[in-house]
Amino acid sequence: MTYDLRLATCDYPKGLKIATTNCGIKYKNRDDLLLIIFENEANVAGVFTSSSMPAAPVTWCKKNIATGTAKALIVNAGNANAFTGKDGENAVLATAEKVAKEFGCKEEQVFISSTGVIGETLKVELITAAIPQMIKSFSSDETAWDKASRAIMTTDTKPKLIKKTCEISGKKVSIIGFAKGSGMIAPNMATMLGYIFTDANISSTTLQILLKEVTEKSFNAITVDSDQSTNDTVLFFATKTAGNHPITDSSSKEISDFKQTLHEVALGLAKMIVVDGEGAKKLIEIEIEGATNEIQAKEVAFSIANSPLVKTAIAGADPNWGRIVMAVGKSCKETSPEKIIVKIGDHPLTKNGAKHPDYVEKLVHEYLKNSEVKISVNLGIGACRAVVWTCDLNEEYIKINKDYRS
Amino acid sequence: MTYDLRLATCDYPKGLKIATTNCGIKYKNRDDLLLIIFENEANVAGVFTSSSMPAAPVTWCKKNIATGTAKALIVNAGNANAFTGKDGENAVLATAEKVAKEFGCKEEQVFISSTGVIGETLKVELITAAIPQMIKSFSSDETAWDKASRAIMTTDTKPKLIKKTCEISGKKVSIIGFAKGSGMIAPNMATMLGYIFTDANISSTTLQILLKEVTEKSFNAITVDSDQSTNDTVLFFATKTAGNHPITDSSSKEISDFKQTLHEVALGLAKMIVVDGEGAKKLIEIEIEGATNEIQAKEVAFSIANSPLVKTAIAGADPNWGRIVMAVGKSCKETSPEKIIVKIGDHPLTKNGAKHPDYVEKLVHEYLKNSEVKISVNLGIGACRAVVWTCDLNEEYIKINKDYRS
Repeated sequence: MTYDLRLATCDYPKGLKIATTNCGIKYKNRDDLLLIIFENEANVAGVFTSSSMPAAPVTWCKKNIATGTAKALIVNAGNANAFTGKDGENAVLATAEKVAKEFGCKEEQVFISSTGVIGETLKVELITAAIPQMIKSFSSDETAWDKASRAIMTTDTKPKLIKKTCEISGKKVSIIGFAKGSGMIAPNMATMLGYIFTDANISSTTLQILLKEVTEKSFNAITVDSDQSTNDTVLFFATKTAGNHPITDSSSKEISDFKQTLHEVALGLAKMIVVDGEGAKKLIEIEIEGATNEIQAKEVAFSIANSPLVKTAIAGADPNWGRIVMAVGKSCKETSPEKIIVKIGDHPLTKNGAKHPDYVEKLVHEYLKNSEVKISVNLGIGACRAVVWTCDLNEEYIKINKDYRS
Repeated sequence: MTYDLRLATCDYPKGLKIATTNCGIKYKNRDDLLLIIFENEANVAGVFTSSSMPAAPVTWCKKNIATGTAKALIVNAGNANAFTGKDGENAVLATAEKVAKEFGCKEEQVFISSTGVIGETLKVELITAAIPQMIKSFSSDETAWDKASRAIMTTDTKPKLIKKTCEISGKKVSIIGFAKGSGMIAPNMATMLGYIFTDANISSTTLQILLKEVTEKSFNAITVDSDQSTNDTVLFFATKTAGNHPITDSSSKEISDFKQTLHEVALGLAKMIVVDGEGAKKLIEIEIEGATNEIQAKEVAFSIANSPLVKTAIAGADPNWGRIVMAVGKSCKETSPEKIIVKIGDHPLTKNGAKHPDYVEKLVHEYLKNSEVKISVNLGIGACRAVVWTCDLNEEYIKINKDYRS
């Protein structure tokens, strides 16, 4: 499948500027540092890893998100600044101080993310040394957004950037988001790094509610390898330059179009992360219906999505659907063989607790050769549903992660 | 590492006989059917998969285990008879009927297991046709035990057989066990197929208590790939031929030596399963200390043991210990970076929430080249501990599971 990365020529959110550079933390011949500044105060919301070992920049953002306003975002790739103790905290402070001093804002308005290896001291002097020059070379055109999405990549093979427009009460507003993530991707509060920007005038409290809602069915509905990062962060900024009537109520009918568009941006980015999962060749959609509640539906969906046996079978286009049954059986004690209906694509696989009489293995084998495949299971015990996305599991995942630091 | 499969020349449990054959279910040029009969009634206990999609033979064994007595055990490899509906139930009934008729016992005294592909109809006529000839060719010598352990293999590359002797009140008793399992190995109640035999005179109620206890720290303390089978079964038979004073109390001091030996047999088999995990090259022991309770300790241990990123790093002898921290962080919300102490082998990796000042990466890299490695984490929040075992994750796991049925 392909995601069109060429952005439409319509307006980008105004009120912010972008700079990227290579500051030399890990990578050569590519940018590894991103700085975005907001000309006026932007409203901001965020969701973060639920890990008890959060990286220093996550702890910093969690503390400052309550203020609801942002003046800058700075992100480095190649070092996660996680499990780095007092040194890590000092690195975050030094970064915030430098941006605040050079740009002229409060330190707590500087939002910071890091991604890369855990447990290595971050050479923060490389970052602080780069900041003055970056502040002189800001841009905000299409190329700048593309560069931003590339500067935060680690093992990602492709940048992940989506831009859409919608309307709030007749005013056109933009939503643009980019994200990174390829391994250590599992659902819990957020996943890896994602940044969404809008020019809509929406209060930070409302942004937070919208972000939490949309994350549950996008970034929190994907998995590559069941491992949750110490650095997961999604931040949502509103520059308030669109001129719309200010929004302070997340249930307002005025933002129904905006909510739908936000969902498309977040889900689009989430799927791009899965498609670019380490070694992945296929996007797998897993839909669970007939559950007693949504949490149960999602648990069963993730049990299938995280099963290495299901993921390798699909990598090999092998219709070994017994592995799907296995993954249902280990995660949902309330159902039974006679109750469930399993499908791959439109092919029914099961009936009355056994193989469906119309099952033709060859057809399912052919279907599984597609680059996008769908698995659906009806648990037969309720009326709730959930959908999650994952990728197949190939030898390349092992190769990438055996050699990551060598 | 090597496990010595040559059995000591001391006595085998008396009171049972073994036959194996190739009945043609899946494999050619190797045995795929095992029948063991007990000359007198054996006492029996069992633990089974907690999957809500149990295979037909598991449902059969669960129903009949309450009787506490067994006359026969029959196991086929190559077809799991799982998710096979009414046909699967009928296959189990037909097998039990045939053994009962040919050997002369009650159907409910025939214990049955299957292992292999899920969802395929079992050609039970191949099994029932083989039974009469098997009953004519029983044996009970060393070779027969070796053949038994081989007849139940699927993707296993090695048989898994352990024999030990101990004493109960001055009487020598034997414990012999064999197991199979290589993929779809994760902890819950039991794992894949395991059979333990003793000649000790121990009541079935006591056997059940002893088996549950020992399973928790052996078969339920290992993982290859986090996937739980529909067919997991461990059965424990006592032929009562050793002449010891009958045991009916699991807390009796008379069986302290027996319990220790049972633990060694069960743990030895469990480790053999891990060592033979699909594509595995290393045995990884994970010890969690300083937990508030044992369940928490085991959860954190399995979070590390099931992390594909930890397992691939160890496959590559890469001391990327940040991944261990990640796995602790995602599974235990009660601890924090400053509290935990992480070690690989005897090398301390962390101190005060950051890399240990004495950490020398090269030494840990060298250590990780060993075929047995140990990871230990002190959570710093309590006094409880747990140990689990897993294997590394290599490209071969993917190859085996892409191609399993092709």
